[in-house]
Amino acid sequence: MKDGSLPLLAPMSEVAGRMATQVVAQCLTHTTGGRGKLLGGVPGVAPAHVVVLGAGSVGVNAARVALGMGAQVTVFDVNIARLRCLDGSLQGRFATAMATPHLIAESVTVADAVIGAVLLPGARAPRLVAEATVAAMLPGSVIVDVAVDQGGCVETIHATSHDAPTYLAHGVVHYAVPNMPGAVPRTSTMALTDVTLPYAQELAGGGLTALTRMPELRGGVNVCRGTLTNAAVADALGLAHAPLERVLGT
Amino acid sequence: MKDGSLPLLAPMSEVAGRMATQVVAQCLTHTTGGRGKLLGGVPGVAPAHVVVLGAGSVGVNAARVALGMGAQVTVFDVNIARLRCLDGSLQGRFATAMATPHLIAESVTVADAVIGAVLLPGARAPRLVAEATVAAMLPGSVIVDVAVDQGGCVETIHATSHDAPTYLAHGVVHYAVPNMPGAVPRTSTMALTDVTLPYAQELAGGGLTALTRMPELRGGVNVCRGTLTNAAVADALGLAHAPLERVLGT
Amino acid sequence: MKDGSLPLLAPMSEVAGRMATQVVAQCLTHTTGGRGKLLGGVPGVAPAHVVVLGAGSVGVNAARVALGMGAQVTVFDVNIARLRCLDGSLQGRFATAMATPHLIAESVTVADAVIGAVLLPGARAPRLVAEATVAAMLPGSVIVDVAVDQGGCVETIHATSHDAPTYLAHGVVHYAVPNMPGAVPRTSTMALTDVTLPYAQELAGGGLTALTRMPELRGGVNVCRGTLTNAAVADALGLAHAPLERVLGT
Amino acid sequence: MKDGSLPLLAPMSEVAGRMATQVVAQCLTHTTGGRGKLLGGVPGVAPAHVVVLGAGSVGVNAARVALGMGAQVTVFDVNIARLRCLDGSLQGRFATAMATPHLIAESVTVADAVIGAVLLPGARAPRLVAEATVAAMLPGSVIVDVAVDQGGCVETIHATSHDAPTYLAHGVVHYAVPNMPGAVPRTSTMALTDVTLPYAQELAGGGLTALTRMPELRGGVNVCRGTLTNAAVADALGLAHAPLERVLGT
Amino acid sequence: MKDGSLPLLAPMSEVAGRMATQVVAQCLTHTTGGRGKLLGGVPGVAPAHVVVLGAGSVGVNAARVALGMGAQVTVFDVNIARLRCLDGSLQGRFATAMATPHLIAESVTVADAVIGAVLLPGARAPRLVAEATVAAMLPGSVIVDVAVDQGGCVETIHATSHDAPTYLAHGVVHYAVPNMPGAVPRTSTMALTDVTLPYAQELAGGGLTALTRMPELRGGVNVCRGTLTNAAVADALGLAHAPLERVLGT
Amino acid sequence: MKDGSLPLLAPMSEVAGRMATQVVAQCLTHTTGGRGKLLGGVPGVAPAHVVVLGAGSVGVNAARVALGMGAQVTVFDVNIARLRCLDGSLQGRFATAMATPHLIAESVTVADAVIGAVLLPGARAPRLVAEATVAAMLPGSVIVDVAVDQGGCVETIHATSHDAPTYLAHGVVHYAVPNMPGAVPRTSTMALTDVTLPYAQELAGGGLTALTRMPELRGGVNVCRGTLTNAAVADALGLAHAPLERVLGT
Repeated sequence: MKDGSLPLLAPMSEVAGRMATQVVAQCLTHTTGGRGKLLGGVPGVAPAHVVVLGAGSVGVNAARVALGMGAQVTVFDVNIARLRCLDGSLQGRFATAMATPHLIAESVTVADAVIGAVLLPGARAPRLVAEATVAAMLPGSVIVDVAVDQGGCVETIHATSHDAPTYLAHGVVHYAVPNMPGAVPRTSTMALTDVTLPYAQELAGGGLTALTRMPELRGGVNVCRGTLTNAAVADALGLAHAPLERVLGT
Repeated sequence: MKDGSLPLLAPMSEVAGRMATQVVAQCLTHTTGGRGKLLGGVPGVAPAHVVVLGAGSVGVNAARVALGMGAQVTVFDVNIARLRCLDGSLQGRFATAMATPHLIAESVTVADAVIGAVLLPGARAPRLVAEATVAAMLPGSVIVDVAVDQGGCVETIHATSHDAPTYLAHGVVHYAVPNMPGAVPRTSTMALTDVTLPYAQELAGGGLTALTRMPELRGGVNVCRGTLTNAAVADALGLAHAPLERVLGT
Repeated sequence: MKDGSLPLLAPMSEVAGRMATQVVAQCLTHTTGGRGKLLGGVPGVAPAHVVVLGAGSVGVNAARVALGMGAQVTVFDVNIARLRCLDGSLQGRFATAMATPHLIAESVTVADAVIGAVLLPGARAPRLVAEATVAAMLPGSVIVDVAVDQGGCVETIHATSHDAPTYLAHGVVHYAVPNMPGAVPRTSTMALTDVTLPYAQELAGGGLTALTRMPELRGGVNVCRGTLTNAAVADALGLAHAPLERVLGT
Repeated sequence: MKDGSLPLLAPMSEVAGRMATQVVAQCLTHTTGGRGKLLGGVPGVAPAHVVVLGAGSVGVNAARVALGMGAQVTVFDVNIARLRCLDGSLQGRFATAMATPHLIAESVTVADAVIGAVLLPGARAPRLVAEATVAAMLPGSVIVDVAVDQGGCVETIHATSHDAPTYLAHGVVHYAVPNMPGAVPRTSTMALTDVTLPYAQELAGGGLTALTRMPELRGGVNVCRGTLTNAAVADALGLAHAPLERVLGT
Repeated sequence: MKDGSLPLLAPMSEVAGRMATQVVAQCLTHTTGGRGKLLGGVPGVAPAHVVVLGAGSVGVNAARVALGMGAQVTVFDVNIARLRCLDGSLQGRFATAMATPHLIAESVTVADAVIGAVLLPGARAPRLVAEATVAAMLPGSVIVDVAVDQGGCVETIHATSHDAPTYLAHGVVHYAVPNMPGAVPRTSTMALTDVTLPYAQELAGGGLTALTRMPELRGGVNVCRGTLTNAAVADALGLAHAPLERVLGT
Repeated sequence: MKDGSLPLLAPMSEVAGRMATQVVAQCLTHTTGGRGKLLGGVPGVAPAHVVVLGAGSVGVNAARVALGMGAQVTVFDVNIARLRCLDGSLQGRFATAMATPHLIAESVTVADAVIGAVLLPGARAPRLVAEATVAAMLPGSVIVDVAVDQGGCVETIHATSHDAPTYLAHGVVHYAVPNMPGAVPRTSTMALTDVTLPYAQELAGGGLTALTRMPELRGGVNVCRGTLTNAAVADALGLAHAPLERVLGT
């Protein structure tokens, strides 16, 4: 949309964030090469400490599930307003911290797991965790980088697949499957449909009036009333085109 | 102990119960053959429905983690007092139900996952879910049977291993690794040490006085002051023995 | 107000939403013709399932009270952002769902109670529940339609009164008193005063400056400084008028 | 049972306690003659203040629902251990107070509603609220006395019926239907069945062995193996009888 | 900023609000001249009643800590939207009320403590509590006025210091240290750094481009590229100046 | 009482535990010589870490208030059942740990505050924190030792008074006022009265029958029906005595 928000991505961020914590729990088991630690601990035995990098949709959802499973959680962000909002809804249940390189390195080094959840729309994810920091992490600790689609926010990350989802680097379990929501297609498809259905209904019912009532659809039109309206397509094919607005007469 | 409680088993029940829900979350993914459903759902998409059979230590811990992850939970037990206790601490957040065969079958048939958590001390687990009920479950739904050590409480269950933890039967993912806490040895060992340490300290520091201060240790003594005291061992070897009490002079 | 919000209606929506769930609880008793079910159930007996149509002010308040009383709740809306917001504040305690005709019918058919809470400012409420769906509901189930003022969102609804608040249709108890807040005048009057008092104070203290400081008052002025300013009134009476802005000299 | 507990009454206390608060909410409306106050208030308007007399099963369930609906709650009991237990599970959400005549009168006089929840097994309920205190209550305030079966704990109470459930005395709405769970028969029957079913199953399956495995059943036996065993019945009819234990040979 | 928000003040409001409740707890002890009342009470003994004047950042933080410590809390504001927001996140846990002189006086007179938390940006704090109301308060009750920097919102308040933080007036303990965050410099410094660091980084890294990327910095520039740009300074010194925009060429 | 419980001490433990955390908050301020840290932190700045030694009544109450104020909390005990109970009611909100010397030293060294809450009835409190550990604590950190009445559980502790409540040792603020509830006499007196009143009422109303109905009173009787019944008093004065039971004829 013109305001920069990406409504179709929001549900996928929610799915990925919630899944990220489930994956951390699984990767921490001995079977997967992890530290052999139960995410939530038990009475008398400390829970795992999870560091979440980013307090956007992915990070907030990851943090909520981690808290629900009994983990100890620290959430980093550079945006103090976002941390304030989180703190307001879950006060006293987890720590928030300013995402400075120094504080991140200090926290990550003693964490059992790190969830990379920094996604900048249309930009490369910032590299928040240096290789030296990863090397200083505890053996068998876990990194799940949800930002791998955009290059990842951990220096040692590279994309994996649902078939071979993890690898070890510096003794740390790395998980970086680009399309995490693909593992729960039933939930992901319904979540996407919830946000796309209104557009489909408008198009099916209204034809061109859909372009008036939902102007964000215009970016997807190539041909209208027999006239090519997409400048990029016209250029690529060496054809003439007319702006969509003129064709619509609006 | 003489009152029938098993203090050394309690922490293992806690570990297994909390792990059971993590395993459910993982088995519900497409990758593992599950329904491809996110345990906690997302806004606008319903969460998974988890049925927990048994409101003892395993069941309560499994249910709490499931709630923490956002699942919809129903807990069954024949002991109404246990359900009342659970309801008191978590009122309005999940349904409790009497464990009658009819109600269990009705719930299991529409559930996304079932956690078998009925452990009777020293007895075979009751068969609460018949094969016909499993056959009627949704394709890709999940059964995690923590009671497999004692025969399991689901008719189609048989033990698996950490290497090949699941199998499909009637299209339902079955997970039944007997020693679930073995997957998180760091947590399990610490939890066991918490309850065994007081005995070890008493033995190390006090010698025979430990048997006076912690009489529950006596069941583990075979030889005392050079005299065989264990009747079963004496019988097996055709040796004479004296009761421990007489040897101790108490 | 010019942004379409109706600040004076908000407190009435809160009152009506909270009352709606109280009414559901009462209508579910045998005495009122209902299913004879306790809204919150008791340990070992499932609570009632309440479907709330709409996640605006009425719906959110109805849902919170239902949760507080121990009911199982599903909230429908077409606006995914509103469901996301609700889910954030009450995660894991109730299900949210997209308001498609299919999903609504499926849920309503097995629900113990439905609360119609869809109010579109200045428009007829959409008909979300068809008569066939009502006919398929359980005998003694309950419909409370807060939207009856605007035509109601259930096909079988018609307005009732505080004296005879309910009627049966298809065996389902219908409650549709148009002015629900009228039953709690002490609370409703104070709630209205909270939002109207600032206007009254401004008018009492400032005279015409009130129209400058609170421009939303201008819509209510008919005569100013001896000049008729309301076009509609002038037209109806065949009189001349001057725009309020000109009379005020602003 | 021999320990004085009444397992079959517990679920009825839960039903009555939870219903009591629903009834309070309804009686506070103008329609029923109440103060016209919404139990939970709305933002900017104070909620009703509910005084619960007794922190047993009835009182605790009434208090939890009242909190869930947003009321301000004070719970009285003479048993400080019970108040401590309540405070532990709901700390900071309502006030507990020692049930002295002075403190009760002080609280009741300014309350919007009082729930009488003091039930002593097999004894008359203590008169905790004197007529003078009722006369000092606010006009339109509400008294729901769950203890009416045992004489009630309010001096002005007398039993009413589901058909005419309330009456006014000193301007205060009194509700005292003896069999409150009768209004929700579906829930009450299931709750009773949950606790009676184990006995029925034992009797159906085992015959006389049921009397050995569940000795609490013996108090209900009148004739066994053709011999009259109930002393009271024998006395009333002038017949001989033999003790059940002798007939059973145990 | 141009929208009137003061981002650098927000963390100081949070610190002061949270500290205010700690100070109330301490001032209520006998040692400090207070009523000798424990803020949270204990089971069977009522907690203290704290009135918070203002539901802005200071008031919300003060109220949350008071609730967390078990106090009974009433929050006043003239802005119903703010009360609605608070009620949404903490429903049923404290009372909200409209800040009319009558209701405030009524509440303050019976309160154990009052927290003045009304801060209007750049204006004198409104006098919400008259001296007569203070004189009517209970002996040993407590007033903590966070708004003392701006004149205070209680008529009897005057600034004190960390060395002699309290004084008695009308038997009421008054606390009004202007710079409350100064008592917790470690927390306050870090909180300020969190919000100032992004500006410092931009200035250090980017020089003049910082003025483009963070236009709110422009108000602090006096000289740019050798030219005086601050009109007020120029006037004071009788020098010429050029507008910053022209010097920057933007 | 004969079962070793001390019903009159329980409310004082509750008062002392809740006060302990208030005292920690105050001692952490710069004014009192502390680290200048706000107990609950603010968004973006970590809260203080409080270690509570002991999960009995004092410790549990201290921990709950600390959580309510937003601190990070770890509770130590040797009794795993007590930790399990705490974890059940507050799961996922704080860490519990086994009270081994090694783990305590490790935690205390990095904590901002320690609350000594180990009270053994009639015995000296165990020394859980050695002087070397205190010396290793952060400068300005805080120790509040509620167990000082029984010798304290920290090696460097000695009793202080309400007038001069703290002293510095190894740069750590020590607070150890023996009679902490004395600072809140209004609350403490009411709490004590709640538990002593039933005895007083029985004595006032029933005379000697009180000794039958409340046998725990017998330990306090010296003379009955003109006969000396207290053996210790008789011995001390060289007088004859008769056992109370014989005098009462029971």
